[in-house]
Amino acid sequence: MSDTAVLLIDCPDRKGLVASVASLLYRYGANIVHADQHQDHEAGLFFMRVEWALDGFDLAAFGAEFQTMAAGLSMHWQLHSMSDAPRVAIFVSQYLHCLVDLLHRQQAGELLCSIPVIVSNHTDAEPLARFYGVEFLHIPVSRDTRQQAEEEQLRRLSKAGIDLVVLARYMQILSPEFVRQYPARIINVHHSFLPAFIGARPYHAAFHRGVKLIGATSHYVTAALDDGPIIEQDVVRISHRDQVEDLIKKGRDMEKSVLSRAVAWHLEHRILCYGNKTVVFD
Amino acid sequence: MSDTAVLLIDCPDRKGLVASVASLLYRYGANIVHADQHQDHEAGLFFMRVEWALDGFDLAAFGAEFQTMAAGLSMHWQLHSMSDAPRVAIFVSQYLHCLVDLLHRQQAGELLCSIPVIVSNHTDAEPLARFYGVEFLHIPVSRDTRQQAEEEQLRRLSKAGIDLVVLARYMQILSPEFVRQYPARIINVHHSFLPAFIGARPYHAAFHRGVKLIGATSHYVTAALDDGPIIEQDVVRISHRDQVEDLIKKGRDMEKSVLSRAVAWHLEHRILCYGNKTVVFD
Amino acid sequence: MSDTAVLLIDCPDRKGLVASVASLLYRYGANIVHADQHQDHEAGLFFMRVEWALDGFDLAAFGAEFQTMAAGLSMHWQLHSMSDAPRVAIFVSQYLHCLVDLLHRQQAGELLCSIPVIVSNHTDAEPLARFYGVEFLHIPVSRDTRQQAEEEQLRRLSKAGIDLVVLARYMQILSPEFVRQYPARIINVHHSFLPAFIGARPYHAAFHRGVKLIGATSHYVTAALDDGPIIEQDVVRISHRDQVEDLIKKGRDMEKSVLSRAVAWHLEHRILCYGNKTVVFD
Amino acid sequence: MSDTAVLLIDCPDRKGLVASVASLLYRYGANIVHADQHQDHEAGLFFMRVEWALDGFDLAAFGAEFQTMAAGLSMHWQLHSMSDAPRVAIFVSQYLHCLVDLLHRQQAGELLCSIPVIVSNHTDAEPLARFYGVEFLHIPVSRDTRQQAEEEQLRRLSKAGIDLVVLARYMQILSPEFVRQYPARIINVHHSFLPAFIGARPYHAAFHRGVKLIGATSHYVTAALDDGPIIEQDVVRISHRDQVEDLIKKGRDMEKSVLSRAVAWHLEHRILCYGNKTVVFD
Repeated sequence: MSDTAVLLIDCPDRKGLVASVASLLYRYGANIVHADQHQDHEAGLFFMRVEWALDGFDLAAFGAEFQTMAAGLSMHWQLHSMSDAPRVAIFVSQYLHCLVDLLHRQQAGELLCSIPVIVSNHTDAEPLARFYGVEFLHIPVSRDTRQQAEEEQLRRLSKAGIDLVVLARYMQILSPEFVRQYPARIINVHHSFLPAFIGARPYHAAFHRGVKLIGATSHYVTAALDDGPIIEQDVVRISHRDQVEDLIKKGRDMEKSVLSRAVAWHLEHRILCYGNKTVVFD
Repeated sequence: MSDTAVLLIDCPDRKGLVASVASLLYRYGANIVHADQHQDHEAGLFFMRVEWALDGFDLAAFGAEFQTMAAGLSMHWQLHSMSDAPRVAIFVSQYLHCLVDLLHRQQAGELLCSIPVIVSNHTDAEPLARFYGVEFLHIPVSRDTRQQAEEEQLRRLSKAGIDLVVLARYMQILSPEFVRQYPARIINVHHSFLPAFIGARPYHAAFHRGVKLIGATSHYVTAALDDGPIIEQDVVRISHRDQVEDLIKKGRDMEKSVLSRAVAWHLEHRILCYGNKTVVFD
Repeated sequence: MSDTAVLLIDCPDRKGLVASVASLLYRYGANIVHADQHQDHEAGLFFMRVEWALDGFDLAAFGAEFQTMAAGLSMHWQLHSMSDAPRVAIFVSQYLHCLVDLLHRQQAGELLCSIPVIVSNHTDAEPLARFYGVEFLHIPVSRDTRQQAEEEQLRRLSKAGIDLVVLARYMQILSPEFVRQYPARIINVHHSFLPAFIGARPYHAAFHRGVKLIGATSHYVTAALDDGPIIEQDVVRISHRDQVEDLIKKGRDMEKSVLSRAVAWHLEHRILCYGNKTVVFD
Repeated sequence: MSDTAVLLIDCPDRKGLVASVASLLYRYGANIVHADQHQDHEAGLFFMRVEWALDGFDLAAFGAEFQTMAAGLSMHWQLHSMSDAPRVAIFVSQYLHCLVDLLHRQQAGELLCSIPVIVSNHTDAEPLARFYGVEFLHIPVSRDTRQQAEEEQLRRLSKAGIDLVVLARYMQILSPEFVRQYPARIINVHHSFLPAFIGARPYHAAFHRGVKLIGATSHYVTAALDDGPIIEQDVVRISHRDQVEDLIKKGRDMEKSVLSRAVAWHLEHRILCYGNKTVVFD
């Protein structure tokens, strides 16, 4: 596919928004390949995603004129060229299944990003990082060194020009200060069907409650534990035959899929957050 | 919810289609509650569905002006007021689960239609028809009387002003002549995951092939058996423990859900056919 | 199918349990049609379900001899003839979809029971009860009359010889005294993926949390609200397009299926409770 | 978990089979951790899987005595010690997602096997083989050299003592002669919901038929193309928005999961074939 641009908009709802945006794009000769919009009538909000071919399109001039229109309509907006691949850092501890999955997908062209750095409080992921040619940062974290470790992490992320942080079963809780540096730009996977089984050891909790389905949830990280905007969820059926270790094993496949979908959608600029929820354009 | 109008469009794709439609709606002051479009790049086709509030909207004037625009852009289009509930005839034989389901959903307000008539080649459905206050037509069909029976059916459908025919496990094959009278307006449910197990006794065929999932498919009826545009499909897991009668039992729930979803979407003017496929706007 | 017997056992796990039961059945010439067992190694418990043909089988003599063996092995056990259809009372308020579903399934032979009585605090279900030939008890409930109403309900259930109470979206909470009369014999459907969204208005809570799947749960009723042993759960995908009313509509189909499956399994003597969990033999 | 043994039986159904097997195991003091059986009443066949702890169990003596019993009851049977990890060869072409998945699962302990060799008609998989320390055999295949290539493959498999061949998107059809060497010991993944879309390019065929779900199927390879006993199937929902390349992308995740589940079940001795179907004990 040739290169495309994506415009993401959220603003107070009012009549004529689609007409305004579509007419401007038409005036610039945009060849729209996909457009979608959504209204939250209760909240009075309008959301839109448009994608068009960049071939022969004057993005700079369009951007300038759109900026004026957007200001008049109180729009929040982002304008991305899909060829500008975001830079992603993956945080991981000792469970490597999500990391393996993300690295292979990126290599296979499923994730539109580069992955310049992997950060871990353990060294288990180092061979994988080396195999995929990614810099590996081993930054141990203990209760006493957490602040210092986070400062080091932030410094290295900043130096690497990171746009998105992915917590691929990273078993440390990030401080509110860290989270504030990457608003709606840290994606975590929690191994339960949120809001059920918030916190530690959700598979054990699910086992003891005797549920018949277990789940996994990918979400943006906010200061409140496991409470950020949900991006994707999935479940898998279990039975009385499944012990905790079976839940853990079955859960891994869901963790991989809900995390990788969330990351792919973020990278394709399909997600808008509002309040504590997400709009995910398909 | 107050009354809304729905505009459904399909036409050759070209630049500016969204801008044209959105601008005209804006000029008439439309308060859009939902809009969606789709392009099939391979086929060069554009599809659109827009829904807006009718409160204070001059539908007749808009329709007239839209007609001119549509002609210039080679559009096929439909303009519906959602308060004009289509009239549905349900055809059924001896399995009543889909009929029960549709009648209750209609009564509960889930299906935006009236159901003036039930047609059957058996009498099993008569008490249900009476309970729900629907006229019941018992029209027996044998090999020799099929043509005559269809003529009677068509006469009664015409008299009842039927817009949509739903085959709710009706165990007779309609002739091409009948089908031609209701193009893309006859919905059938086939008890397999089409195109697997076309024709008679699909649960038996699935059992003997040893599949691990069974399916059901709702589709528009065309002259070719079980080959019309697919509207909805679903599957359910089975195991070696399930005998043919278990497949039949598990399949029933899918038949109900894929059929009722197809009917609901048709009634909400969410479906466009092209070639042998459907666009289903959500 | 000819008539069968079902033996359900739970007891402390020890070697030779299967051999003992299977050998005794063999000695009586049982033609086993299905057998399944389960061990909870953590709890040290053994569970078993055996079903065999009753044709020419001396159930009384077997039962007597088995009783002696069971006493020696500290077994809890139930011995049922599948031709003894349990008697079920359905409690309902104003949402009738689960009731319609259960009544039709019973009539179609999917539920191995009789339904002699429907109990409601409203009169909406009365026509359906009449159509299916079921006695309808209208027992209004208010805060002041709850105890009196429950006494009336219990009196009528007892008089009707009820074995199982099904709460088919009955919007009243039963008192612990009521629940105590029917231990593991009251099945409820809760319209969330428990333990998420316990209590009232779970669809509203799910909407505001922004989950991407909604669920429904059938469970045995205990004194603790929405905390009894879970029998079955299911989920359905939603998106940002779905408003609360869409969740309610999509949820209905799950409510029907998780409730009807739970009732069917109970009636087929497939469920054993232990602690706050269930074994469901398939 | 400590080491266990698995006994897999299939034979003509008759009374007393469970009693005989369970009693013999009891006599040898077996601590059964899982047992399951199944009868196909139509075919008159009995299937059983028992797993017990080997700690202090005399497997050789039991095996000898069981052999005598089995002969008298016309049993086919297999007796495995779970600590004897089967040796698996993976065949792959240029799509590597299934290979990556299987290699990581084996390394993480999810697959109870060793993987001594990867066979490919291309060289794309060589770096992965090296990373995971697996021998890589590059055996190009053309129309003219197929027979010669298969002879080389068979020689190398034999030399490596291979128990199971996994076709992880291997884009060559194996000859009946090859298949005959590994009866019910070659597992393939086909990227459709069999029996729909047999043969080449199933995603393209699914796209043109306009299905609403696409599937993947893992099965034992027989001489008839895509017609062997099905082990596992799964589906994923698609919409009119999905182009062929989207189907391919969404399909990959299913291919991985249905293939890895099939391989895991085979390695845990959970699968019995009969006719063209499988019993999969869970």
